[in-house]
Amino acid sequence: MTLPDALLDTLRTHFPGDALATGMAERLAYAYDNSRRNALPDAVVFPTSHEQTEALVKACRAHRVPVIGRGRGTNTTGATVPVAGGVVASFERMNRILRIDPDNRLAVVEPGVLNGDLQQALKPHGFFWPPDPSSSPWCSIGGNLACNSAGPRTVKYGSPRENTLGLRAVAGTGEGFRCGTYTSKGATGYDLTRLLIGSEGTLALITEATLKLTPKPSALRTIRATYRDVSAAARAVARIMAQPVTPCALEFIDDVALKLARDYGGDSVPLAGAMLMIEVDGEAETLPSAVDAVSRAARGDGLEDLRVAETAEETQALWSARKALSPAQRTISPNKINEDVVVPVSHLPELVDGIKQLARKHDVLIVSFGHAGNGNLHVNLLPRDESERERAHACLADVFALVISLEGTLSGEHGIGLVKKEFMPLALQPSTLQLMRHVKAAFDPEGILNPGKLLP
Amino acid sequence: MTLPDALLDTLRTHFPGDALATGMAERLAYAYDNSRRNALPDAVVFPTSHEQTEALVKACRAHRVPVIGRGRGTNTTGATVPVAGGVVASFERMNRILRIDPDNRLAVVEPGVLNGDLQQALKPHGFFWPPDPSSSPWCSIGGNLACNSAGPRTVKYGSPRENTLGLRAVAGTGEGFRCGTYTSKGATGYDLTRLLIGSEGTLALITEATLKLTPKPSALRTIRATYRDVSAAARAVARIMAQPVTPCALEFIDDVALKLARDYGGDSVPLAGAMLMIEVDGEAETLPSAVDAVSRAARGDGLEDLRVAETAEETQALWSARKALSPAQRTISPNKINEDVVVPVSHLPELVDGIKQLARKHDVLIVSFGHAGNGNLHVNLLPRDESERERAHACLADVFALVISLEGTLSGEHGIGLVKKEFMPLALQPSTLQLMRHVKAAFDPEGILNPGKLLP
Repeated sequence: MTLPDALLDTLRTHFPGDALATGMAERLAYAYDNSRRNALPDAVVFPTSHEQTEALVKACRAHRVPVIGRGRGTNTTGATVPVAGGVVASFERMNRILRIDPDNRLAVVEPGVLNGDLQQALKPHGFFWPPDPSSSPWCSIGGNLACNSAGPRTVKYGSPRENTLGLRAVAGTGEGFRCGTYTSKGATGYDLTRLLIGSEGTLALITEATLKLTPKPSALRTIRATYRDVSAAARAVARIMAQPVTPCALEFIDDVALKLARDYGGDSVPLAGAMLMIEVDGEAETLPSAVDAVSRAARGDGLEDLRVAETAEETQALWSARKALSPAQRTISPNKINEDVVVPVSHLPELVDGIKQLARKHDVLIVSFGHAGNGNLHVNLLPRDESERERAHACLADVFALVISLEGTLSGEHGIGLVKKEFMPLALQPSTLQLMRHVKAAFDPEGILNPGKLLP
Repeated sequence: MTLPDALLDTLRTHFPGDALATGMAERLAYAYDNSRRNALPDAVVFPTSHEQTEALVKACRAHRVPVIGRGRGTNTTGATVPVAGGVVASFERMNRILRIDPDNRLAVVEPGVLNGDLQQALKPHGFFWPPDPSSSPWCSIGGNLACNSAGPRTVKYGSPRENTLGLRAVAGTGEGFRCGTYTSKGATGYDLTRLLIGSEGTLALITEATLKLTPKPSALRTIRATYRDVSAAARAVARIMAQPVTPCALEFIDDVALKLARDYGGDSVPLAGAMLMIEVDGEAETLPSAVDAVSRAARGDGLEDLRVAETAEETQALWSARKALSPAQRTISPNKINEDVVVPVSHLPELVDGIKQLARKHDVLIVSFGHAGNGNLHVNLLPRDESERERAHACLADVFALVISLEGTLSGEHGIGLVKKEFMPLALQPSTLQLMRHVKAAFDPEGILNPGKLLP
């Protein structure tokens, strides 16, 4: 596609100077995301205001040209790849923290604020915003909201849907609107806020968010438990989640992932059949009993070693190793297939056993780790060549079928984007998908916002 | 309206025997709700299955006849009054708890299950479902979901939107669908679950809900603090919410409400300028420090007395008095205007001062109490005769204007229904309302579900 001259003229008016880029170098830079898929946009704009974003969508709507919102492209599903061309709207320059309001436990931010920058800014006030993807130093709040990106702390503190009060946005019509509240509670009409969260830029472009903050607990303890095999570890997860003390992180790492992690984290990462990293937070005087309760649940058949990290360095080494797992796998397989299936936590033992069986059946290397407290596993298929890639794709279909049979769903936090949309009919009824299509049309009648994503 | 014979025949097929009622006695019984508004339905049906509900909506759609979903009619906004006639679908007989799954911290229920019955059933498992309206012994989960009904515990545990994982429902097209997940986390498509919650039966009829459960803390302490005047109490609320320990209830009761409460609760209810009822929950060993932190914040200018309830009876008396406040006001004014405005908690002092001024200006008796920790006040205007009623209506407009000027919104938990829809343009932009209308059309193209509600 080449953009019509009239559209380019309009864009130049609203995006003067380097706020509009049409050169090949910039177009290439915004062609891909962490899914490693790519497709060339026709132009890239860098909005810095809500009004500019309205003007952008209005202009593109008039010419039926796609608009693809983009945070920092750290998503793994191709959600920001401009598969139908059009204009990428990169919000990286719209990155002001507009207001931190500790008295009301909220912050108002522009979409381009980085997750890590927000957390830093909140620290002196004693608050944090719970969503914490592995990419938090580099991913934007706008992207977190668009993809409902979560992270380890979700098990206790919820995802962006539970931690956002209101939004300002621009619908596919080019009309700006506000939804939600500046209060911690509201029942004034339909919940458009949660509808936009996780909609992957297909309904509206988010230009401002009012985020709910949580007081930061003063104390934290990390427990490392190793197990004979993945089944034993998964059974421990189910036991931990069936008792009342909810850990603020409950991460599962399988044997293959542990070997990878050891390459990055060194000897502090143990070799075992599987490991759990468990974090418990609270106030200093209450923490020991919470740690006891969680440790009791973590013990059981197949436990090899359980220890509470003694130093901050030890904890840091564990997390560094855990956070390095996603990129580390690229060294084995540049074409890794990265899923983030989720099952009810009591079915986690069946899931990990089933995945081991499928790896053998299809002769594919699979590395599993992730947010076990939510039953949310990152299942990574690592094909090393073309023939393995074919086997991996056959295996993937079996993985999804297993997940659905265990009352689970396709994605816990990565979303659907490009790479999982063909599997949506496995998880959702035709009538549900049809309603989603109607909702899409209600916000974006011409279908110009991020076409080709989320819905099959 | 008289229902077409063909429709009545179809309804008789799907709702045999006393599952369909067309007699005047039954129609009158389902004509009103706790708003005291009323309008006669043409028939009442009592679905007991999802399939029956689909058949109902399909049949009514074919004849363009309204369908009004109803739980137990405890809502205060007229949300279940059949203003355009049609068929009331009362879910009172569809009241089975289908599954309690403590390992996955969830329960699956039909819509007619009473909130209080669910809480009782969960008790032996050590869990509760956080939403707890004052009417919990008599209100249904379906109604709680339709209205996003909350209650005192919302300040710590959230509303139905934060405590529901998935739904089964029937859209205005008559098509059944499932949305959400059976897992504690999900990013598979648009969040239709939250969209339905709080939509007051205008988008779909809920036939099944998967609810997220919370472990019940083992210990609870109730603090009673009295203040010189409402301003001092409101400032204490803001201080309590600005520190990290979140109480599980933080209720405000003004001087007029206290006098009323004393009639019900006896001498255990103090006379004062205002009172806060504060509850803190947790584990036994951690509670004292939490109570200390909250008490410290509650102290300050204008505090008259602060005491921790020593006995369960004392606590019970306080809550009984608090819960009796809504019905008690009927004795003063059968035509009370019951609002539940919400402002950011730091603006609560300005709200309570402003309301006292408006009461004087319009010479209307106003009783204020409610969920102060969320900035959510039940503002009750109590006109005793026709001339006072007119003044009360003028005052109400001023109350809403005040709330909006303080960055608040019309409703924290009661919803909009019939009685507040004319005020929606005060709280929402035209573009937001327009999107809500489009969403309505996406689910209910003929507009047969609960017509005349929520949207102006």
